[in-house]
Amino acid sequence: MVRVRLATPMLQENDEVARENRTLFQERGIFVLNLMSSPGSGKTSTLERTIEQLPDGLRLAVIEGDIYTTRDAERIEARGVPVVQINTAGACHLDARMIKPTLDDFDLGAIDLLIVENVGNLVCPAEFDLGEDARAVVLSVTEGNDKPMKYPLIFRLARAALINKIDLLPYTDCDLAELERDMAMINPELKMFQVSARTGQGFEAWVAWLAEQTEKKKRGG
Amino acid sequence: MVRVRLATPMLQENDEVARENRTLFQERGIFVLNLMSSPGSGKTSTLERTIEQLPDGLRLAVIEGDIYTTRDAERIEARGVPVVQINTAGACHLDARMIKPTLDDFDLGAIDLLIVENVGNLVCPAEFDLGEDARAVVLSVTEGNDKPMKYPLIFRLARAALINKIDLLPYTDCDLAELERDMAMINPELKMFQVSARTGQGFEAWVAWLAEQTEKKKRGG
Repeated sequence: MVRVRLATPMLQENDEVARENRTLFQERGIFVLNLMSSPGSGKTSTLERTIEQLPDGLRLAVIEGDIYTTRDAERIEARGVPVVQINTAGACHLDARMIKPTLDDFDLGAIDLLIVENVGNLVCPAEFDLGEDARAVVLSVTEGNDKPMKYPLIFRLARAALINKIDLLPYTDCDLAELERDMAMINPELKMFQVSARTGQGFEAWVAWLAEQTEKKKRGG
Repeated sequence: MVRVRLATPMLQENDEVARENRTLFQERGIFVLNLMSSPGSGKTSTLERTIEQLPDGLRLAVIEGDIYTTRDAERIEARGVPVVQINTAGACHLDARMIKPTLDDFDLGAIDLLIVENVGNLVCPAEFDLGEDARAVVLSVTEGNDKPMKYPLIFRLARAALINKIDLLPYTDCDLAELERDMAMINPELKMFQVSARTGQGFEAWVAWLAEQTEKKKRGG
């Protein structure tokens, strides 16, 4: 038997500001997606592919969370999408209070879909409601199939999971069936998409889902 | 120009307890390694390979940090190594105060090397001194070569970096030369090891380094 010790978590409340953000998004009819993953799972590459394939007329904006650099924001800006970088200066996640003032930097009347790319971290970002409509988690097959069981909260709270780097599957020991079974056990409602941000594989279904959610929100759904 | 907003980091001091841990390790001549990485980089697999290849007579013990599960600890225990699991119950890193009581669970007189596998996270664990002698960071080539520049603190404070999943390099876009150049720029003293925990490639050099550090500490170095 493995001995187990419990340590006390250090969390903090930011629900009130998240509610204010949510009310604002509701008034404006903006669908807000909080995009989360471990470092290196491919959030930014996924976002780049998503931008390429979004339907014409769907107006996207992006908030990029990063600890120090503006590298990801520069990649998004290069594609002509309005983007604001939040540098957390060491903090390991975004919170609702970081999002709120950032919204002043956008023309909210000209946005249908706001994607917030969180700091690369499978743990802390899951704890903080930003006021989003939905959360999506990116997981790459090269990370191994035990991640949902080890980091269940992020999978439990997500509406969608992108199983990325599917093109590398033949070269890994990842058991895709077990991965999907574990995710479904943690969250039976989770929409799963097998994708490769590198090859573009699987993006039609993901982008269709995202566009559908955006359209629904716009119509006041 | 990308707009940047600064947010305030939320950190906390645990240096006093780390000092107490360090004093205890010094008295006992135990070399302590704090092993860190993103989820899915291969910390536990690396540890399993390391156990296989450690020289006879070098007495290892392991502390496993995990948010909820005991999966990793069970993998280590299966190899006959004394192991204690710390479940952080949601917290995204280990701190010195979690380590301290755990030490009572070991026979410290029968340990030469203690490896602490931190929670899978490239951000928060870097902020917390556990009282260790050295930190090692595992990074897999499938995560992309921009990770050191995006998460510099963990690479700045590490003594060694294991560049894992090197067997998958031909199938990725990872620029290994740039990765190593960036790491060397952030930390010129960083020892780098190209390894594959799956194939065993590159483990001789890593294990030799680890055994050498352990031997030095035992001799009071």
